[in-house]
Amino acid sequence: MANAVDGGIITLTTDFGVRDAYVGIMKGVIAARAPAARVVDISHLVSPQRIREGAFLLHTAYPFFPPGTVHVGVVDPGVGTARRAIVLDVPGVGRFVGPDNGLFAYVLDAHPGCAAREIANPAFMRLPVSRTFHGRDVFAPAAAALRAGAPCEEVGPALDPATLVRLPALWPAWHGDEIAGEVVHVDHFGTLVTNIPRARFAGLAPAQLAALRIEAGGLTVRGLRETYGDAAPGDVIALFGSSGFLEVARVDGRAARSAPGATLGTEVGGPARVAR
Amino acid sequence: MANAVDGGIITLTTDFGVRDAYVGIMKGVIAARAPAARVVDISHLVSPQRIREGAFLLHTAYPFFPPGTVHVGVVDPGVGTARRAIVLDVPGVGRFVGPDNGLFAYVLDAHPGCAAREIANPAFMRLPVSRTFHGRDVFAPAAAALRAGAPCEEVGPALDPATLVRLPALWPAWHGDEIAGEVVHVDHFGTLVTNIPRARFAGLAPAQLAALRIEAGGLTVRGLRETYGDAAPGDVIALFGSSGFLEVARVDGRAARSAPGATLGTEVGGPARVAR
Amino acid sequence: MANAVDGGIITLTTDFGVRDAYVGIMKGVIAARAPAARVVDISHLVSPQRIREGAFLLHTAYPFFPPGTVHVGVVDPGVGTARRAIVLDVPGVGRFVGPDNGLFAYVLDAHPGCAAREIANPAFMRLPVSRTFHGRDVFAPAAAALRAGAPCEEVGPALDPATLVRLPALWPAWHGDEIAGEVVHVDHFGTLVTNIPRARFAGLAPAQLAALRIEAGGLTVRGLRETYGDAAPGDVIALFGSSGFLEVARVDGRAARSAPGATLGTEVGGPARVAR
Repeated sequence: MANAVDGGIITLTTDFGVRDAYVGIMKGVIAARAPAARVVDISHLVSPQRIREGAFLLHTAYPFFPPGTVHVGVVDPGVGTARRAIVLDVPGVGRFVGPDNGLFAYVLDAHPGCAAREIANPAFMRLPVSRTFHGRDVFAPAAAALRAGAPCEEVGPALDPATLVRLPALWPAWHGDEIAGEVVHVDHFGTLVTNIPRARFAGLAPAQLAALRIEAGGLTVRGLRETYGDAAPGDVIALFGSSGFLEVARVDGRAARSAPGATLGTEVGGPARVAR
Repeated sequence: MANAVDGGIITLTTDFGVRDAYVGIMKGVIAARAPAARVVDISHLVSPQRIREGAFLLHTAYPFFPPGTVHVGVVDPGVGTARRAIVLDVPGVGRFVGPDNGLFAYVLDAHPGCAAREIANPAFMRLPVSRTFHGRDVFAPAAAALRAGAPCEEVGPALDPATLVRLPALWPAWHGDEIAGEVVHVDHFGTLVTNIPRARFAGLAPAQLAALRIEAGGLTVRGLRETYGDAAPGDVIALFGSSGFLEVARVDGRAARSAPGATLGTEVGGPARVAR
Repeated sequence: MANAVDGGIITLTTDFGVRDAYVGIMKGVIAARAPAARVVDISHLVSPQRIREGAFLLHTAYPFFPPGTVHVGVVDPGVGTARRAIVLDVPGVGRFVGPDNGLFAYVLDAHPGCAAREIANPAFMRLPVSRTFHGRDVFAPAAAALRAGAPCEEVGPALDPATLVRLPALWPAWHGDEIAGEVVHVDHFGTLVTNIPRARFAGLAPAQLAALRIEAGGLTVRGLRETYGDAAPGDVIALFGSSGFLEVARVDGRAARSAPGATLGTEVGGPARVAR
């Protein structure tokens, strides 16, 4: 399982930000319990408590990591409540450690037959477990224990994956002449990234693509482009990003800045719609 | 001391930010001198030159790292002046490398009998030492040398820990019916974190806790809660954070945004007071 | 080449920001292809598409890394166009992987006789190569392959370094009584960092240094100081930074905030001039 050279990888995806010591504390807990593990940050700037955004970012990243990687996700508005802490084991892909709140909805969608367990064995926790910081007290210790070789079967009772929390409208589809999706992420360049996948447009002819009416975060664009190449600076355009989702971008600028539906503060939100 | 697998850990806590190459340069210096060491970031967004905030963040993080970890702190308004560069050696805990300016005040408070030395041996520096970047020229090289196995005794002359710089009011206490502390950190969620520890409230009855008058950064809250659970979105509440210090938070919002005493720019500051 | 302990280092310098999963994805690609390599971030907050700033930051950092380090740079406004992807091999220094757009201009200036190759061999790529994310599909895979031991000669056809893209005015010089440079970076402290090197002032007497008229980002300062020591809080001063370039800083404040020529958004830009 673990690489002989480096003890394997643990990734972190959280909404903890980069200002505080929270992420460093999780890394300390991991280092103390799985000294050979390597930790890789996917993002700590998921908008606060936006589970869908965390699920989306993790979805775009986990397929690129080596099989056996342990992915920890902590976007956890229900910390301290009855929401379950879980481990998903997807053979040939990796393991996923975090709250049962939809954060692994894309993983469950792609691997509905994976093994799932509730984290219940205190040997996979740091005691006493606080009510507010399960990243430190539950998820980092569980990931470290797995990374250090503890069998997944000992984490806790098996769960039926069908009972785990999902997210609605994970893959928006055509309903008549319209797709209704959502802006799930605003990236570093101010681009509005939707959860509408490229696959939805497979059957459309170029003339149909050029005639689409695309709305995201309150901005409206006509037509879909393949690249930035043929647009002028300042133009707002729609295209598919490197992860295969529909995006609305401003060439050499920030689309989010002029999007009336992009919530300030979280910088995420607003509907995304495509009409043909 | 060092782990056979990975050469041990060096943590970094600085006010260098994440925009510049300064932190990367420190990691290059470490890599060149202690190739097997692993570097873990605690925070690089300590508010510029706020020694107390750096001391606080380090205090909340270092206990979670494995014994023998080398913790480097660089919040150093006195760089280039006569302030000393020091190493603290706390058996069973770790070593601390940085300026003698109070940054390790919590460490010294918890371990007053630790060994301390001034960094004076050029073998623990990168020469010539600049007047402005001791992170690169003194602290990273000293940490790397220790990590690579150089004995702490060779760093430089022993110092009496009692002569090292401390911070006033490290642990604010009751004076009559009032505790006077400080907002020492504003976290990623805009929560005002004070240096007033939970232990101060151990003897109070629930009715007394509910009657407390709490001020932080200019906001005033009545009563202390155990969790966010029973408050409504937008409410400003006081509670203890995961590190055991009194915090003032806005449920689903940023307390700092409405705190008249939270200095813009640094986002840290203002008094914190509790009255019973 | 690679260290027996850790498989060697790959550094990353990009304009991808720290909010998105892009950098994590690159690290996943590297981990899957060169499991023993260690990745060190130099900066991911190069201002979007500012090649000169990326070149400058890399220039200030790479000399501190161990020989053999593989430095990846991705500031790549021409991604998806005909611009070449290259590897520079500088014996005793390291290898540089990125677009041929000037990002390695300082490296080429210091090592004009280095070996250069175009990345053309699909074994050094992740297929299919997207039109928008060569960090994931070309540069990370090429760096990982080199780190894992693939010979540089197999990357692709040799290039004459003299044909590679450079940046104009890399090292501004006196023209008569004036040096005309540029603000190439605004650092975390709001300091305006220019590309005017210390070496240009070697021959000047103290009285001449004190009489210099220095403009950067629209701010004007008279005279050059050695340290912050003798200035008052709020003063705007000019001095040499730790990397040996002329900077304009506000003592205990942010020079960039009051610089009319510092472009908002990018926070980089504006001319820098010195007159004697």
